Amino acid sequence: MSINIPRGTQDILPGEVEKWHLIERKARELCEKYQYHELRTPIFEHTDLFIRGVGDTTDIVQKEMYTFEDRGGRSITLRPEGTAPVVRSFVEKKMFGYPNQPVKLYYLGPMFRYERPQAGRFRQFVQFGAEALGSNDPAIDAEVISLAMNLYKELGLKKLKLVVNSLGDKASRNAHREALINHFQPRIGEFCRDCQNRLEKNPLRILDCKQDHDHELMKSAPSIIDYLNDESKAYFEKLQQYLTQLNISFEVDPNLVRGLDYYNHTAFEIMSNAEGFGAITTLCGGGRYNGLAEDIGGPDTPGIGFALSIERLLAALDAESIQLDLKEGIDCYLAYLGEEAKDYTVGLLQNLRMAGFSAERDYLDRKIKAQFKAADRLKARYVAVLGKEELKNNKINVKNMSTGEQVEVELGSFVQYFQGLKL
Amino acid sequence: MSINIPRGTQDILPGEVEKWHLIERKARELCEKYQYHELRTPIFEHTDLFIRGVGDTTDIVQKEMYTFEDRGGRSITLRPEGTAPVVRSFVEKKMFGYPNQPVKLYYLGPMFRYERPQAGRFRQFVQFGAEALGSNDPAIDAEVISLAMNLYKELGLKKLKLVVNSLGDKASRNAHREALINHFQPRIGEFCRDCQNRLEKNPLRILDCKQDHDHELMKSAPSIIDYLNDESKAYFEKLQQYLTQLNISFEVDPNLVRGLDYYNHTAFEIMSNAEGFGAITTLCGGGRYNGLAEDIGGPDTPGIGFALSIERLLAALDAESIQLDLKEGIDCYLAYLGEEAKDYTVGLLQNLRMAGFSAERDYLDRKIKAQFKAADRLKARYVAVLGKEELKNNKINVKNMSTGEQVEVELGSFVQYFQGLKL
Repeated sequence: MSINIPRGTQDILPGEVEKWHLIERKARELCEKYQYHELRTPIFEHTDLFIRGVGDTTDIVQKEMYTFEDRGGRSITLRPEGTAPVVRSFVEKKMFGYPNQPVKLYYLGPMFRYERPQAGRFRQFVQFGAEALGSNDPAIDAEVISLAMNLYKELGLKKLKLVVNSLGDKASRNAHREALINHFQPRIGEFCRDCQNRLEKNPLRILDCKQDHDHELMKSAPSIIDYLNDESKAYFEKLQQYLTQLNISFEVDPNLVRGLDYYNHTAFEIMSNAEGFGAITTLCGGGRYNGLAEDIGGPDTPGIGFALSIERLLAALDAESIQLDLKEGIDCYLAYLGEEAKDYTVGLLQNLRMAGFSAERDYLDRKIKAQFKAADRLKARYVAVLGKEELKNNKINVKNMSTGEQVEVELGSFVQYFQGLKL
Repeated sequence: MSINIPRGTQDILPGEVEKWHLIERKARELCEKYQYHELRTPIFEHTDLFIRGVGDTTDIVQKEMYTFEDRGGRSITLRPEGTAPVVRSFVEKKMFGYPNQPVKLYYLGPMFRYERPQAGRFRQFVQFGAEALGSNDPAIDAEVISLAMNLYKELGLKKLKLVVNSLGDKASRNAHREALINHFQPRIGEFCRDCQNRLEKNPLRILDCKQDHDHELMKSAPSIIDYLNDESKAYFEKLQQYLTQLNISFEVDPNLVRGLDYYNHTAFEIMSNAEGFGAITTLCGGGRYNGLAEDIGGPDTPGIGFALSIERLLAALDAESIQLDLKEGIDCYLAYLGEEAKDYTVGLLQNLRMAGFSAERDYLDRKIKAQFKAADRLKARYVAVLGKEELKNNKINVKNMSTGEQVEVELGSFVQYFQGLKL
């Protein structure tokens, strides 16, 4: 009996994985230009980190975590998101003391949420995210947003919508919170149990409820925009000024509330508005989380970041019918005739590869015709044939597969011959 | 209270992560030349896969796996090694039916074993491995070994020792197994409980026991070499011929038994013999596993591969005092004086980055002197200064930090100026 892959996860196979390579390379190059540096945290963390860092009123913590006990009896959770681990590392490694501030980090790796698998939603998915810790300058908010936008743009996406909002500072949020409680309290019985729990703990998240989405109190709910104090307003205006300066178009959506508890000031989402992209249009989400480092046991440190899923990015590329520019084919297929020539190709192949060429030969004792077919399938740019006669004369026959041209090359200068080609 | 990283795991921080980038890039480039293609399998698999694919007599399965139940009640295990998942995918995705055979795959990612943490041994560690499925040609065994050796060599390692052995085909292994049972049975009571269990299940693994390592019966145990039938002998000889042809020096060690149950014919290890490398000298291990695909529910398929740990590779580089050639510094630090210039740099910075340069500015409202200090720390090759006066005249001052030379550049051709430099 065979064993299957776990539900909600996927193998990324050759043929598909090359797209991932290209996207990941672009992301890393962009981070280098922007001076965000990779931080690799473990796949799992102590469960407490996410309870504290993501928030115990969130769906993630309440319903979606892969939590288990390790052999030492510790409660361990496969990371459902990347920000809390980055901030944990920032605090634990005392990066707040680094001379270079803000500390600008990125991550790129698998995350895990036990959700109902559906098109474009996996239980293991890959997130690319960037975080800037230590600055309160709205210019860094704009930088973080532009980093995400530019990754999409460099890959060719055009149908993007950026939505921004401000959740204000602590004082603004508290005032808004009061207003929300007063607004919902009288009729909270008409809402789902989750919302009833949210009322006291985090009433902002009621606005984000999928179940009570259409309740009439939702539309009339007090908007955070009306509760922003002067400082918060100025911050939000400066951000918008910078985005305009960077030619990044955006919409302000006062209802934008991110699913995590820790945001303040800037919140944003990037969506695909390509036709037929499907129900889940959010490609990227992020925001400012000035209280998070303190929640995790560090000093009070401002922070802002985003996370985006590579799976959704690929879906958006598909929706816009964008073909990534992937390199195809191999430089040389080395065909042989006879046992002696076969053995000889072992060394030739190695020499080609060590000189930087991609090269392949047969490992199934196939006839020469089948070897040529294999070369075709591999889209070989050149096929070199070594037979008994050639070997005796210290020659090898090299065929250019696009022109059909054939030449005899001295075995001793075979690699040099390839070095002289434009490959 | 702060939250720490789980025991036995590590954060890979900026400053260290660049070494990983270089090693990973080298590994990927090498695989491209050798035509091994990446296969990404999930971080966890059904537990059964490893029980069947790694073997239930192994330490890994008996003592070291991170096994837990997911929210759906399935037994799930964080992958302790990469071969069983690759073969699971090979079977599930029916790669045995691909026209291009053998199927040549590689993986690069974290693995998990609940072991006692010690120097160079982590509970989460990263393995790079290659697998060739579908060929019985000893040339592919040599290719796989040369791929691993060349990664080490390209990174500059010199103090390497390759050890090879043959475990023979099924008939040879069975004959040897009989001999081992006859050898140990009379005095098995003197061995540890693990070895007593191994006697019937897999007596070969007694030779690998750390506890009974010095028992007198160990030295006199029958050697597999004496039980190889003609076919197995011929296979092993051909492999050695190819290795010699590839200028790869090696030793034959008849006692080399790999820790996993599934090997036959070729088994090999690459060790560091650098002074002061420490007790665990094995950098890479691999071998042939012709029965594995069938054990996992697929057709009978030959296979060979290796796995190597990046952590140990880094340790070996350290032991040989090898400095990797890492790029340092940024292209431009953009300093400003005054609020207006500060805002203006938001766009300038973006233009530089989009043109391909790494560039940075201040986000903490620091004075110009502190900005210059930051530029020094970041090893900026150029520092551009924008003040009130410059902005009025549409100019910016650019200083070459290695020569001290300064020029005034038109703001409108700032990026072009950088494009004209050799950076």
